[in-house]
Amino acid sequence: MKLQPPKGTRDFLPNDMEKRKWVFDRVRKVFELYGYEEIETPAFESLELLTCKGSLGEEAVKDIYRFSDKSGRELGLRFDFTVPIARIVGTTTLPKPIRWFCIGKLWRYDDITKGRWREFSQAGIELIGAPGAGADAELLQVIIDCLLSFGLKDFVVRINSRNILDSIASELGIKKTEAVFRMLDKLEKKGEDVIKEELQKELSPDQITGLFDFIRMKKKIYTTELDEIIKLLDEKYRKFVKIDLSIARGLDYYTGFIFEVVIKGAEGLGAVAAGGRYDNLIKKYGGNDTPATGFGIGVDRLMEVLEEKKLFKLPEKKTVYVIALCNEAKPTANMVCKELRDADIAAELALVERSLSNQLKYANSRDIPYAVIIGPKDMKEGKVTLRDMKTGEEKKIVIYEIVKEISLDNSNAEQCV
Amino acid sequence: MKLQPPKGTRDFLPNDMEKRKWVFDRVRKVFELYGYEEIETPAFESLELLTCKGSLGEEAVKDIYRFSDKSGRELGLRFDFTVPIARIVGTTTLPKPIRWFCIGKLWRYDDITKGRWREFSQAGIELIGAPGAGADAELLQVIIDCLLSFGLKDFVVRINSRNILDSIASELGIKKTEAVFRMLDKLEKKGEDVIKEELQKELSPDQITGLFDFIRMKKKIYTTELDEIIKLLDEKYRKFVKIDLSIARGLDYYTGFIFEVVIKGAEGLGAVAAGGRYDNLIKKYGGNDTPATGFGIGVDRLMEVLEEKKLFKLPEKKTVYVIALCNEAKPTANMVCKELRDADIAAELALVERSLSNQLKYANSRDIPYAVIIGPKDMKEGKVTLRDMKTGEEKKIVIYEIVKEISLDNSNAEQCV
Repeated sequence: MKLQPPKGTRDFLPNDMEKRKWVFDRVRKVFELYGYEEIETPAFESLELLTCKGSLGEEAVKDIYRFSDKSGRELGLRFDFTVPIARIVGTTTLPKPIRWFCIGKLWRYDDITKGRWREFSQAGIELIGAPGAGADAELLQVIIDCLLSFGLKDFVVRINSRNILDSIASELGIKKTEAVFRMLDKLEKKGEDVIKEELQKELSPDQITGLFDFIRMKKKIYTTELDEIIKLLDEKYRKFVKIDLSIARGLDYYTGFIFEVVIKGAEGLGAVAAGGRYDNLIKKYGGNDTPATGFGIGVDRLMEVLEEKKLFKLPEKKTVYVIALCNEAKPTANMVCKELRDADIAAELALVERSLSNQLKYANSRDIPYAVIIGPKDMKEGKVTLRDMKTGEEKKIVIYEIVKEISLDNSNAEQCV
Repeated sequence: MKLQPPKGTRDFLPNDMEKRKWVFDRVRKVFELYGYEEIETPAFESLELLTCKGSLGEEAVKDIYRFSDKSGRELGLRFDFTVPIARIVGTTTLPKPIRWFCIGKLWRYDDITKGRWREFSQAGIELIGAPGAGADAELLQVIIDCLLSFGLKDFVVRINSRNILDSIASELGIKKTEAVFRMLDKLEKKGEDVIKEELQKELSPDQITGLFDFIRMKKKIYTTELDEIIKLLDEKYRKFVKIDLSIARGLDYYTGFIFEVVIKGAEGLGAVAAGGRYDNLIKKYGGNDTPATGFGIGVDRLMEVLEEKKLFKLPEKKTVYVIALCNEAKPTANMVCKELRDADIAAELALVERSLSNQLKYANSRDIPYAVIIGPKDMKEGKVTLRDMKTGEEKKIVIYEIVKEISLDNSNAEQCV
């Protein structure tokens, strides 16, 4: 029997989970400060809905984990949050604009590379029912505030528009725009030479030269749509934003503005966040013509970057391991646990009978910062031993002062990396 | 195209999500106070692992959502947290005892009844590597503290042991113990008459009488194992616990102590939490012989109870809706938003152009408590209008005092139901 998690998926044990929760909490906080509200959708949707023409694009559709339930319904694991949200908005009449976000897992059967998993996590937000540049500018502010909140400072938000790509294609007489822009999208990853060679399959040498002239902005192209978004941003945000006509984004549902965020020095990871405007998607799911824009943060990639740059700032643990050295001490141990928990301090009762040195070894292996040790003699005196597991320092204290001792000690503790 | 979520699944919109998060946070807090650490496992596992003999039981195996990935791996959506955790523990050598918990979604293709969904949420904890009654007693404390933390007071924790059921079966010469105890498990739901009739398929009239004599404790049976657990509980916990020889729990992996929690007045919903000891499971997944005990809270059912009993206590929202009445006011509106967010107050910028009355209507429909209105005249005076959306009261204030005004107002706000 295979005892690993299925290929492309992972378990997150406590240390990883602490980091994940820290990331989720920060992102959630920024989203909420902009008035976004959290929602949750099912892990799977009807396959018909997920593969609806013009939403995901052919390549993406192939990567859906699909299955039938016991009564033959064709289903697929969700691939992004945008499609389920478009379904909800298409079938309800909520006051607009709607500001929603989702934090959770998505599934795509794709090649596994660094930072790319088949089960992966995204934090995505959608702003639905606001047509203008103001909505797109708001999203740029949100993603930039998210990254700043992690202590990231060196990143670039590349923006582009499907409309601009379309007018370049039309000016150069490019037919297979989808294929061409999908190739172009890998420019940073593969380099100009490789991409130019690939493009020869679809384009004439003149078209390729023309295309790169546009991308390098040697040829004039109207970027009014993007300029308007940039104009709405304060300098705090504007300095991170750069027009880049080579980005195209893979999903078919984008209709105009698109963007992606790349961390400098971690370009190989690809975009850590990406999104854009999808003004036609909600109509596809039975709704009115509804403008919409959104983005997703690739949490797994973001965490790789935070790890490399040592930017995790987790709060220090303040658990107490409570050891009764004899049966008679057990009720006291229980009482000490209760006192601590009532004061919001985590207390772990030693349940397995071991020598004191093995108990302390266990507490150390778990990075528990304090132990309370209760022996038969202690109880007579109404005192217990409080041990600082880092320094090994021990002191006898009266039972009702444990909470005070630990709280005092903790209030001096700095946040650690 | 079907635009509903797949049968047995649901969307959770912002109001529901607030409640879900409130429940998760409370449960998480109690778990953490006892030293439990959160982990996360993949949504799917290899089907072989999920269906491994002697873990789930035949009925449960039928309900697994199963599928193959693109390279033919047979997979199934996770059915509980215990099996994935047993896999992890079986394949690692972590210091024991391990105290872990999971909060997340599970999937079972089952009949849909009140409080029972095909995609459902559980908060589950596992205590692995501690053999004694102390571990089982700790779990009872944890579940009782969870329920008390929601303000629930009227519930019963029914405990039993597979060992006791086995000795009853052996005393009465019952062979098909699994079928018999599965029938008996529905005693509360279906009533004594129905169950007695069902049992006639498997048992003689004497066996049925004998069985009920045991259950009603008219016949002496040794419950030492359970008495020992109860003895370890303070009166605070003990008063909720009751030995009930009729409960059997469906899953095959339980080996001894089992329990379930039923809320008085909501017995029809079934158990809101259940668990037990599974000392053989980890060995099945390649680990050493490892004692283990755990439980899961059925979050969906619990939330039905909390809703009925009006026990949700959500914090009041303190979002501010910021409206610029003209283009010239927009930079000020942006600045007001920034001020508020910097002070940890959520600010939503009005992005869609509408009349003031329609803007206020929108804010009302979203239950937003404050609006800041900025007109051309206001800007000259360096003042803006702060409107209390509940009372309709408006006052002019200087911009840099908005944060103070709203914070003051909020510090008086009570928690609302």
